[in-house]
Amino acid sequence: MFSEDVRRLLGKQAFARLATLLPDGSPQMTVMWFREVDGVLRMITPAGSRKVANLERDNRVAVIVEDPENPYHFVEIRGHIEIIRDDAAARVEMVPIAERYIGDKAEAFAGALSDAPRVILEIHPRKVLHRPGRKPGSGAASNH
Amino acid sequence: MFSEDVRRLLGKQAFARLATLLPDGSPQMTVMWFREVDGVLRMITPAGSRKVANLERDNRVAVIVEDPENPYHFVEIRGHIEIIRDDAAARVEMVPIAERYIGDKAEAFAGALSDAPRVILEIHPRKVLHRPGRKPGSGAASNH
Repeated sequence: MFSEDVRRLLGKQAFARLATLLPDGSPQMTVMWFREVDGVLRMITPAGSRKVANLERDNRVAVIVEDPENPYHFVEIRGHIEIIRDDAAARVEMVPIAERYIGDKAEAFAGALSDAPRVILEIHPRKVLHRPGRKPGSGAASNH
Repeated sequence: MFSEDVRRLLGKQAFARLATLLPDGSPQMTVMWFREVDGVLRMITPAGSRKVANLERDNRVAVIVEDPENPYHFVEIRGHIEIIRDDAAARVEMVPIAERYIGDKAEAFAGALSDAPRVILEIHPRKVLHRPGRKPGSGAASNH
């Protein structure tokens, strides 16, 4: 589902901005670490978090990942999240995700997580919109 | 509604990631220029855009603005958008918004917009969540 260009973008040290739906159907957003594995985005979060409560009610999400070197270049991914309720697996998965952002401190970071159970969030894309924009003045197509 | 710290963050050369709701109620996201004026965020977009169609049906939104120097520091704003259907006013407002991002090229940028009518989107906050995080290893509270 991801083109080579999108996969390259997702492989950068970029953050995911995740939109979920509150109980009243209005959007909620947060900033997350993630990694892409075989066309799916994986994130880790506490099982007791607001996001997880939102997703239990309605698992439809949108995500934006921007190129850290060029915020005019981003991908929007719409789809749904599968919640994997396996604390041990989530703690294992935390390491390669954290490595993308904090390198060799990832093991220590994962080891120092609180005892509160974690889940893996797997984002399955339904629609992928690649926006390869550039800063205006450099010939960009504009969103404005 | 904005604390001094949040106002300072919103004054930086940061982008807004805007979540709106598609007709089926699922979230859609995009990256936008904006500026804050008297507790309201203003953005410009074509009147015929998908965002505007979404907002006509349901004007509830969420926005994230991150500190460009520290992506672990961000603010989430939830609220609703008022659509101001005034093409002339939108073209005037485009200039100070664009100046934040492209400086003295803003006038030329606004002057070169297509003839397609623009609207001003005004985000009125209902809830403001300030997340002053830091990179793990620097003593951050974590979202993971």
